[in-house]
Amino acid sequence: MSAAVPPERRPDSPPDQPVRTLLALADHTAVTLDQTRLPFDRVEIVLRRCADCEQAIASMQVRGAPLIGAVAAFGLAFAMREGSDDAALDAAHARLLATRPTAVNLRWALDRVRARVAVALPGQRWAIAWHEACDIADEDVAINQAIGEHGAMHLRRLIAQREAAGRPLDARTPLQLLTHCNAGRLAAVAHGTALAPIYALHRAGVPLHVWVDETRPRNQGASLTMWELADAGVPCTVVADNAGGLLMRQGRIDAVIVGCDRVARNGDVANKVGTLLKALAARDAGVPFWVACPSPTIDPAAPDGEAIEIETRSARELTHITGRAADGRLCEVQLVPDGVAGFNPAFDVTPARLVDALLTEHGMVAASEAGVAAVLMAAAASAAPRTSS
Amino acid sequence: MSAAVPPERRPDSPPDQPVRTLLALADHTAVTLDQTRLPFDRVEIVLRRCADCEQAIASMQVRGAPLIGAVAAFGLAFAMREGSDDAALDAAHARLLATRPTAVNLRWALDRVRARVAVALPGQRWAIAWHEACDIADEDVAINQAIGEHGAMHLRRLIAQREAAGRPLDARTPLQLLTHCNAGRLAAVAHGTALAPIYALHRAGVPLHVWVDETRPRNQGASLTMWELADAGVPCTVVADNAGGLLMRQGRIDAVIVGCDRVARNGDVANKVGTLLKALAARDAGVPFWVACPSPTIDPAAPDGEAIEIETRSARELTHITGRAADGRLCEVQLVPDGVAGFNPAFDVTPARLVDALLTEHGMVAASEAGVAAVLMAAAASAAPRTSS
Repeated sequence: MSAAVPPERRPDSPPDQPVRTLLALADHTAVTLDQTRLPFDRVEIVLRRCADCEQAIASMQVRGAPLIGAVAAFGLAFAMREGSDDAALDAAHARLLATRPTAVNLRWALDRVRARVAVALPGQRWAIAWHEACDIADEDVAINQAIGEHGAMHLRRLIAQREAAGRPLDARTPLQLLTHCNAGRLAAVAHGTALAPIYALHRAGVPLHVWVDETRPRNQGASLTMWELADAGVPCTVVADNAGGLLMRQGRIDAVIVGCDRVARNGDVANKVGTLLKALAARDAGVPFWVACPSPTIDPAAPDGEAIEIETRSARELTHITGRAADGRLCEVQLVPDGVAGFNPAFDVTPARLVDALLTEHGMVAASEAGVAAVLMAAAASAAPRTSS
Repeated sequence: MSAAVPPERRPDSPPDQPVRTLLALADHTAVTLDQTRLPFDRVEIVLRRCADCEQAIASMQVRGAPLIGAVAAFGLAFAMREGSDDAALDAAHARLLATRPTAVNLRWALDRVRARVAVALPGQRWAIAWHEACDIADEDVAINQAIGEHGAMHLRRLIAQREAAGRPLDARTPLQLLTHCNAGRLAAVAHGTALAPIYALHRAGVPLHVWVDETRPRNQGASLTMWELADAGVPCTVVADNAGGLLMRQGRIDAVIVGCDRVARNGDVANKVGTLLKALAARDAGVPFWVACPSPTIDPAAPDGEAIEIETRSARELTHITGRAADGRLCEVQLVPDGVAGFNPAFDVTPARLVDALLTEHGMVAASEAGVAAVLMAAAASAAPRTSS
């Protein structure tokens, strides 16, 4: 496969579908991008075996909760081709589950595939699992597409407000959005969550521009979000995480849209560290602050943000960074004096009162007990016919 | 001069003085640290000629407004030793003024030295200029020492409040402070501004710990502030700029103290970009937010923050970073995909309503028209006897 024809755009890509980060092919392989090579190289990896999927998740060649779930589902399917008795099923489930410590979608997808195939004869399991994995991937695309359509509709309202205020959009004064981290198609099978409305408007020809927080310490904004927006031709500019407050006070941002890692029952939002600071700045400047939230990201077991544990990661993510040196090679450099301490919390919690709306596949709702409950009920209702089929 | 005996600690250092970043020696040279070599190497540079000072400022071997002003003053003094007629005076003044575009202290210090020597005979000019430069340096130390004493007194009130609330200080639960960028002794002749109260309390044996924002994009926090706090033995931990909101909500910060680049007449504060986000987080979490502000940093010509122009610097500061590679060499790496746009505003403006206090050499005042006016009057009163002497 040629690097000149990336996997998401090959002839076997579904013609009516968006660019897919994970694509199931007719030859029963799946292809994705090696995200450890981004943003400097576009390198595809082909998934044919369970071990390929384990490796891709564990080494972070794929990352982002929805994408991890889908890749794990394909991994379990491949395992059923390699040996389909109950022992093989349980062993593969356990191996795949162990690839990442905390991804909720990982367990959800694995349990779903296992439940499907466990009741089937071993000889049928590979085919059933393959189709279930394809369904999981397709459903992720559908959820994100719906988030994109709802979000685009609400962004059009902001555009109408701007026009009513005498500030219509054109190429020089586009719709100005800010995002944090990567909640784009690279974190999902397609569309992304926070970026889905942006892609929808961009496809519709609406002039827009995205400010992208670099998102220290892992720089997912500077590397992944900038890469995928530029790849899609969406005008975008990277800024230091420190700059967003100034931009909002200067009236240079029409709305902030971020993704989320977990949403509590009361609407509190756990997301990449720094999200809280942008929510505070947005509220102070009167800028709408929206959180793109697929219903599976709601955690009904968490009454509020206090119940969400904040993962602390290695300080080395903060004290060292890898980039491309002048000679083209990747090089890790140390940024701080020898021997100093660093503290690296990966997430923060934005209280619901600072979130203007949750943008879900079932529409936009308030970040509140009532709004979250409405989404959970809609999700249960839409899932009901499927489970009885 | 041996690297093992740094200039600020050599036997000719004034015994009753704090560690000086710039030290005038009895042999009529001045020594300082090459800050372009920090945080990895402590290398001193000796200033003997006007050209040494021009070079040190232009190449950012010295940075920080007060330090730049003092180095420029010594530069003009050395110029008078090299040739002391009016033409030489004007030429040196012009060369030194051109070394950095926007530093207010630079012009102030140069004008002050020139005014002193212009009325003297050429043969006396070198001696007068040298003493004036020493006075400028000593006054900076005195201003910052006063800020440190006032700040320490107010921090002790916070400590008393903590004790009254049943949370006394000890080594495991020290006073927790957050700072942004570098407003330490490396930016001044000694003490620093925001760090002066911290050093004062640390010298007094008060258990404290400083969270240091890495301060993207130039990382002055991660490199310079971490270096100087560690050098002084002050417990400190570097965090991503994104982490401060979380830390404050978790109750892990007792106060935020930052420096400033310019303060308007109404108390609006221009400082390193990202300061605004910390002020918003502090207000939301009920954490005191103080700005260390030497009176010369007040700009009476600026009625409010709107009047302060925000410098935009090269996007390369954002898209590339220099650190130490595994082989020990300094290496610049690229952090973003090729060809992407970046935007790099260097400062932001924190509105006075978010600033709990200005910490000046004349005491702590409200960030308000009245508070600023009181500081300007006190500064004028303390300067008056001097100008008539």
